[in-house]
Amino acid sequence: MPKTAGIILVGNEILSGKIEDANAIYLCRELRRLGMDVRKIAIIPDDVDVIAAEVAAAHRAWDVVFTSGGVGPTHDDVTIEGVARALGVAVVRHPQLAGLLRQYYGERLNEAHLKMAEVPEGAELVGAESLRFPTIVMRNVYILPGVPEIFRQKFDAIRERFRDEPIHLKNVFVRIGEGTLAAHLNEVLRHYPALLLGSYPEFSNPEYRVKVTLESRDPSYLEAALAMFVKGLPVDAVVKIT
Amino acid sequence: MPKTAGIILVGNEILSGKIEDANAIYLCRELRRLGMDVRKIAIIPDDVDVIAAEVAAAHRAWDVVFTSGGVGPTHDDVTIEGVARALGVAVVRHPQLAGLLRQYYGERLNEAHLKMAEVPEGAELVGAESLRFPTIVMRNVYILPGVPEIFRQKFDAIRERFRDEPIHLKNVFVRIGEGTLAAHLNEVLRHYPALLLGSYPEFSNPEYRVKVTLESRDPSYLEAALAMFVKGLPVDAVVKIT
Repeated sequence: MPKTAGIILVGNEILSGKIEDANAIYLCRELRRLGMDVRKIAIIPDDVDVIAAEVAAAHRAWDVVFTSGGVGPTHDDVTIEGVARALGVAVVRHPQLAGLLRQYYGERLNEAHLKMAEVPEGAELVGAESLRFPTIVMRNVYILPGVPEIFRQKFDAIRERFRDEPIHLKNVFVRIGEGTLAAHLNEVLRHYPALLLGSYPEFSNPEYRVKVTLESRDPSYLEAALAMFVKGLPVDAVVKIT
Repeated sequence: MPKTAGIILVGNEILSGKIEDANAIYLCRELRRLGMDVRKIAIIPDDVDVIAAEVAAAHRAWDVVFTSGGVGPTHDDVTIEGVARALGVAVVRHPQLAGLLRQYYGERLNEAHLKMAEVPEGAELVGAESLRFPTIVMRNVYILPGVPEIFRQKFDAIRERFRDEPIHLKNVFVRIGEGTLAAHLNEVLRHYPALLLGSYPEFSNPEYRVKVTLESRDPSYLEAALAMFVKGLPVDAVVKIT
């Protein structure tokens, strides 16, 4: 069975339209390349109870959960507490993180900085080989920061943990509309029920009207479904296949 | 009480990283300008049961719910059925929508096109004054398409329904770090507990280190909180206030 993932973005600044998240699309692309199946993204406010409820549900539902945001030293950084509450454990100061912060801040180190050494009790630290600050993992919940540059560095350091059987994709661009295609798509699905089949109309590109995506973990199943799909299209309907 | 909103994006193509959603950020910005409070965004697959569960929860939790995507003529367009199931009603063909589709497609009209005339039983049509195809609303659930150009046209046609008391915002850019700021931010919140206070570190712009956002629906409360915040900062800490 392919591994499933859930993504939880924590941040009032996204919900209030102040910033556009860059981490979810990045993670979706990377996890797909690795062969994982992202099943849900939830974007929620900096609120401990809301975070706890969302993390608890995702922890049960998916193989792996990623959180992004809410891990700094200020009052609105409450993800650690939310994850701890979701899993029914206390928040504790991790000696290894406290040591790293002491090295980094030296004499300037204060209580606010030390908040960044807090973890849900029982958490592990991973990815420490290549980065100054490792990533906190609590059971299946990977706690990542919201700042995109650091998010990517931290994910890159642990990405091989998530490698799974790849998902193969074919895109077929056609110059006929979805209404005309629909019955044929249903026919293909009847023959290839395990096919992941998507249909995306395009209104602003004059080159094609619909992009049809066919996906499977089994390359020969995909080729057979693709052949059936293309064969059943009207002559000249295909613009290109990629 | 300000009105709350939830946004549900339906689409495998977002979760698999094939396309980057543009509708959630647009809607968050527009609703914030109108004075509404977006509380959650959920991005979920083209799966009737998942859509039904998410819509049912959002319908109960928020004043208004927006869905985006899954409303075309093909097999993966199952949002209408999901909303109907969420609210415990049947899917029916709406005569007015069927008439519009008949006008638009003429002789080419087929069963797949007529799928776009389906609505949850009891739904209303809104925004018909300015657009060829109106928007389907089921109780507090506004069903919008995934294609960004059409999403925006449809939202624009109904935006005045969502106007509420505005939320006022001040941004303070400072050249000190979050760790140094944290205690002062807590102090400001103790005096102004109703203030919405955000703190966002910046690592790639050399001009400032943290953007602090202060927000309130009450302009004089905001000004008083801003004055206290700025007064308590070290000399020269403020880069600019916008």
